[in-house]
Amino acid sequence: MENFDFQAPTNILFGEGQLQHLPRLLQEHGQRVLLTYGGGSIKRNGLYDEVQTLLKNANMTVIELGGIDPNPRLETVKEGARLCHEHDIDVILAVGGGSTIDCSKAIAAAYYYDGDPWDFTQKRELATKGLPIVTVLTLAATGSEMNGGAVISNMETKEKLGMGGRALIPKASILDPTNTFTVPRYQTMAGSADILSHLIENYFSVTEHAAVQDHVAEGLMKTVLHYTPIALEQPEHYDARANLMWASSLALNGLTGSGKKGSWSCHPMEHELSAYYDITHGIGLAILTPRWLAHILNADTVEKIAAFGRAVLDVEWEEPWAAARQTIQRLYETFVAWGVPMTLGEVGIDREYLEEMAEQAVKHSTLATHAYVPLEVKDVQAIYEACLTPMTFTE
Amino acid sequence: MENFDFQAPTNILFGEGQLQHLPRLLQEHGQRVLLTYGGGSIKRNGLYDEVQTLLKNANMTVIELGGIDPNPRLETVKEGARLCHEHDIDVILAVGGGSTIDCSKAIAAAYYYDGDPWDFTQKRELATKGLPIVTVLTLAATGSEMNGGAVISNMETKEKLGMGGRALIPKASILDPTNTFTVPRYQTMAGSADILSHLIENYFSVTEHAAVQDHVAEGLMKTVLHYTPIALEQPEHYDARANLMWASSLALNGLTGSGKKGSWSCHPMEHELSAYYDITHGIGLAILTPRWLAHILNADTVEKIAAFGRAVLDVEWEEPWAAARQTIQRLYETFVAWGVPMTLGEVGIDREYLEEMAEQAVKHSTLATHAYVPLEVKDVQAIYEACLTPMTFTE
Repeated sequence: MENFDFQAPTNILFGEGQLQHLPRLLQEHGQRVLLTYGGGSIKRNGLYDEVQTLLKNANMTVIELGGIDPNPRLETVKEGARLCHEHDIDVILAVGGGSTIDCSKAIAAAYYYDGDPWDFTQKRELATKGLPIVTVLTLAATGSEMNGGAVISNMETKEKLGMGGRALIPKASILDPTNTFTVPRYQTMAGSADILSHLIENYFSVTEHAAVQDHVAEGLMKTVLHYTPIALEQPEHYDARANLMWASSLALNGLTGSGKKGSWSCHPMEHELSAYYDITHGIGLAILTPRWLAHILNADTVEKIAAFGRAVLDVEWEEPWAAARQTIQRLYETFVAWGVPMTLGEVGIDREYLEEMAEQAVKHSTLATHAYVPLEVKDVQAIYEACLTPMTFTE
Repeated sequence: MENFDFQAPTNILFGEGQLQHLPRLLQEHGQRVLLTYGGGSIKRNGLYDEVQTLLKNANMTVIELGGIDPNPRLETVKEGARLCHEHDIDVILAVGGGSTIDCSKAIAAAYYYDGDPWDFTQKRELATKGLPIVTVLTLAATGSEMNGGAVISNMETKEKLGMGGRALIPKASILDPTNTFTVPRYQTMAGSADILSHLIENYFSVTEHAAVQDHVAEGLMKTVLHYTPIALEQPEHYDARANLMWASSLALNGLTGSGKKGSWSCHPMEHELSAYYDITHGIGLAILTPRWLAHILNADTVEKIAAFGRAVLDVEWEEPWAAARQTIQRLYETFVAWGVPMTLGEVGIDREYLEEMAEQAVKHSTLATHAYVPLEVKDVQAIYEACLTPMTFTE
């Protein structure tokens, strides 16, 4: 196990009806709130009205920033920071999924920074201070509700990059599973794929003997694999939504990554796909992950891939190569069974920019030097190429 | 899953050499430190000198409270609070295991309370405020380094009771596995039994469908079962000590208990044993747990006990009763293999107070009303009785 510095201080209020505590959570920081949200689903399902009523009854001042994009944009960050200054905001209330929360983090940091907020993606240490953030989560996916990370997009340069810092970790997050009952099928499967991917990225690391982290990750992966089909079939199944929601937070709050070193693999590759084509992040990850595993399968990785399959995908082969191949097949078939479009063509991506995106993926990350299996441009390109056609298996 | 309110804000600095950050962690709260520790093992292994040198070089004022007992006593709490007032202490530095940290929490709360600190065990809500606490952990066991709970003993009344509050959660804890290299064999196995017991107590709950919590608990239990024999054979095995140490913190920071309701079973029963006989807490838990499982095995519990064994003890029986019986046997044999004295006689306890302790256990807890399987005085007494003789199994 590697040395680490872990802190996940977010106060989680979990369960149906926890929204009633929202005014108290916000008022610890002040009375003037910037309310951020996305495309309006919270207006359709009534959550927006509930929040507004609660804050009005608590005599709070609410400034709104709605319409935050699924891949939140630099311009929105700037606009949010401007609003915070103009209205002397005390606390940001993000009601939504990862994009709304990520955008709010960037706004929180931009408030205290005179330069271009895009700088945060170039120098992480610039984001040392932020306005306090409270979230009401509406999608089980990114884990942003319990960590300090954010991803923002620069549509001019076609870049989608990470930023963050401990100061940006939400002070409190309300996780009410019923707020995810109306999440559409496609977003539900994308969210689960995102959770799984966070766990898989940390699981496959060059660090050995991090059993706490790996066994916890296996437990969370089993949970996601068990409850995703249930949530897809019965969108209002409380326990399915509850387990997916809590798994999403724990999958990326440092619990499974702290003490393990190296860079992630599929996320840097996916970030180029959604930077170029604005596709749904989780879907991109689902498409990439089985091809990535197939590409890196070798004598050094076979045991770990096999262990992964035995622990979470009911793989029973003792022989490691057979077990590893079956693991990849089962993971692919799991996504197919959920209904994920499993080729790039199905999400509108063709060959045109594959090479360019591969170059960008390597440039924007430490894939080539610090990944579990280091990936050069040609490797990334080969993985992208493999995503053009369905995977086939012989057994 | 039940509703819950989770917060585990402790900053964990994990790994060899992290002690160097101690002055910075303390100075966030002030320059005047109450240093608490136990029986002197930190003087023998050099940790005491290291800490003193670091604090001296940072020009900090250090007042000492050494000799804290394995079951920390009310009088020590009072003495600690007195020292904090007399010397205008800013922060408490606990260097030790759970007893030292628990005692420090009680001192931290007593500092702000005019009455008898024993009141905290009668009314939890009295401990709303505390001096900040930083810990340097030397034993993987109680998890006190990452939660707000404490257990203190009143030797006059032969009572050993819990107290706590969110204000008492340590601000930071340094977890350097090398600080546990000198933990003796007996304390190592007792610590592991304590970690396992925390996980088992939360695992067996009347709440169903808390898969996140249960699968995370299984992962931590597997870790403890794998690494304990290694640590017993090779006390300086870094990865074994590291995994046990991190498992100890995660086993009782709310992660596996939040969202599950009901009271614990073995801890209330064990607390009477160590209140009456001052035995090692983890050893008492190891003795009790298999007998408790055997006592509560019935048509309602058989599936859960079987699932526990299949997940963490390599039980392969499909048939639930066979699987559950094998689970209990394997758990017992695991403790025997570690070298735990598995009868009450071996730790100096005879029949004399069994009935009285059973009455106290029920009186001091909600065993009879809120346990996984409610336990009356006669049940507790029967479990104690069963602990007088070795368990036998027929297969």
